Amino acid sequence: MPPQALTGDQDAIDDFLRKFESGVLWSGDYVFPGTVETLELLRAKGKKIVFVTNNSTKSREEYQKKLASLGIASTTEEIFASAYSSAIYISRILQLPSPKNKVFVLGESGIEQELQSEGIEFIGGTDPAYRRPITSEDRERLADGSFLDGDVGIVLAGLDFHINYLKLAVAYQYLARGAVFLATNTDSTLPSNNTFFPGAGSISIPLTNMTGQTPLALGKPSQAMMDAIEGKFKLNRAKTCMVGDRLNTDIKFGVEGNLGGTLMVLTGVNKKGDWDLDNSAAVPGYYVERLSDLSGYNA
Amino acid sequence: MPPQALTGDQDAIDDFLRKFESGVLWSGDYVFPGTVETLELLRAKGKKIVFVTNNSTKSREEYQKKLASLGIASTTEEIFASAYSSAIYISRILQLPSPKNKVFVLGESGIEQELQSEGIEFIGGTDPAYRRPITSEDRERLADGSFLDGDVGIVLAGLDFHINYLKLAVAYQYLARGAVFLATNTDSTLPSNNTFFPGAGSISIPLTNMTGQTPLALGKPSQAMMDAIEGKFKLNRAKTCMVGDRLNTDIKFGVEGNLGGTLMVLTGVNKKGDWDLDNSAAVPGYYVERLSDLSGYNA
Repeated sequence: MPPQALTGDQDAIDDFLRKFESGVLWSGDYVFPGTVETLELLRAKGKKIVFVTNNSTKSREEYQKKLASLGIASTTEEIFASAYSSAIYISRILQLPSPKNKVFVLGESGIEQELQSEGIEFIGGTDPAYRRPITSEDRERLADGSFLDGDVGIVLAGLDFHINYLKLAVAYQYLARGAVFLATNTDSTLPSNNTFFPGAGSISIPLTNMTGQTPLALGKPSQAMMDAIEGKFKLNRAKTCMVGDRLNTDIKFGVEGNLGGTLMVLTGVNKKGDWDLDNSAAVPGYYVERLSDLSGYNA
Repeated sequence: MPPQALTGDQDAIDDFLRKFESGVLWSGDYVFPGTVETLELLRAKGKKIVFVTNNSTKSREEYQKKLASLGIASTTEEIFASAYSSAIYISRILQLPSPKNKVFVLGESGIEQELQSEGIEFIGGTDPAYRRPITSEDRERLADGSFLDGDVGIVLAGLDFHINYLKLAVAYQYLARGAVFLATNTDSTLPSNNTFFPGAGSISIPLTNMTGQTPLALGKPSQAMMDAIEGKFKLNRAKTCMVGDRLNTDIKFGVEGNLGGTLMVLTGVNKKGDWDLDNSAAVPGYYVERLSDLSGYNA
């Protein structure tokens, strides 16, 4: 069934708003005119809003501040980022027996902060000891194991702006010794500055290529993230709408999660009609030109 | 047809030696007893020897010195490494029109030296300007293009012990703008110190994942390398034997190159019978326990 256009059709918008009590969405660095007012209208109508992002480089607190700087009111508790999702998975679902439950992190401080908040031990991450070229002594000590921490049972790969050969070599050794392979998310690219940069998937894929193992991804469209969101917020899936701009993450996430609806917003990655392409990852239930079309802000 | 065992069967060895006039092989860091003597015996019998390696971090001159340090006499002209193979391909086969034929290099000095020897312009490589974390100014200048050299028409990815986020982001921008994507080789791992480290494939695969483009690989088992070897050495393929320890590179390289024979040496990566596995990349024509079995050195 093709998606239903909502832009400019007030009856359809009213039906849509009556149907859902919760919305899961994200906004990037740029906020389109009317977005803030629309979110406030949705809150005024009693809708619960959850902000979800696959970017693992910041903690929920940092994202709350970022949203505030964009004029969007939120609480840390309303934010669900892939670093947090990963920490929750490790501490509450995976639950490896101590002390073999330490995490080797490929990533930035957002992951570290969320692991800390869940009381999970880790090494790697932003530690300057790993931000240097590999040496021949490292090679010997990786080969004989003396470089490694015997308590590491998990490799968690997220977006790491300081990725290097040493970190990949260390992560490989842990995986070769049986560590569980997790990824905050596996997006190949990171949209930024109106172009693309290497995404978290660029960090994990060399390890997948070396080991033949695919990491369990804890971000969209992984249903492990949906389960965690549902568990935390006690959402009624049938009355929850996923709102997003990307078919292969956002919309797929909502469709596979059996949410009551998915709303495609055409101000981002995908364009109108992309859902008709043969390789489309998912078809949304609804679409609007911009989020503010829900509020009549531009009318 | 299963491979023929040569170890201990002098008649079979004599037949084998009569059949071939050239041998293509490589030896790693460790030389097994009798290898030097066996190579000398083969030379004494008039066999031409070509040393081939996928490792792009050193130039042919450096490999010649390395072989000498292991006691193996050779000349630079007998050595064919993937950095050299890549330089030959760019200068003699690809031949992009100047000035849009500059190369952005992900790799070490071996690639730079071979590009220089073919008169090919390049940037990147070991330049310290790229060995640093990405900045927000870099992001802006990558997005607006002012960071980039408009003459770059090729991205060449080899083994880079100094890979980082900035280099991947730069390489992606060149590929997104239409640069030809080449790799010295795409081995996922680099065997060293009796374990594995990230190989050249770990450098190119994030870019493959981001762009959907697979690089043309100029190392084993790519037939582009075989064509270059044949062209340079005027080998008679029917009378040439590929000698190696790895089914999915060495033996596959010889089989797909229609060489007269392939000889598996069991002192390296693969073990006896690996060629019977369902996922075996190739079946060798012959096998020996160690190269010196050809000379009766251990007999």
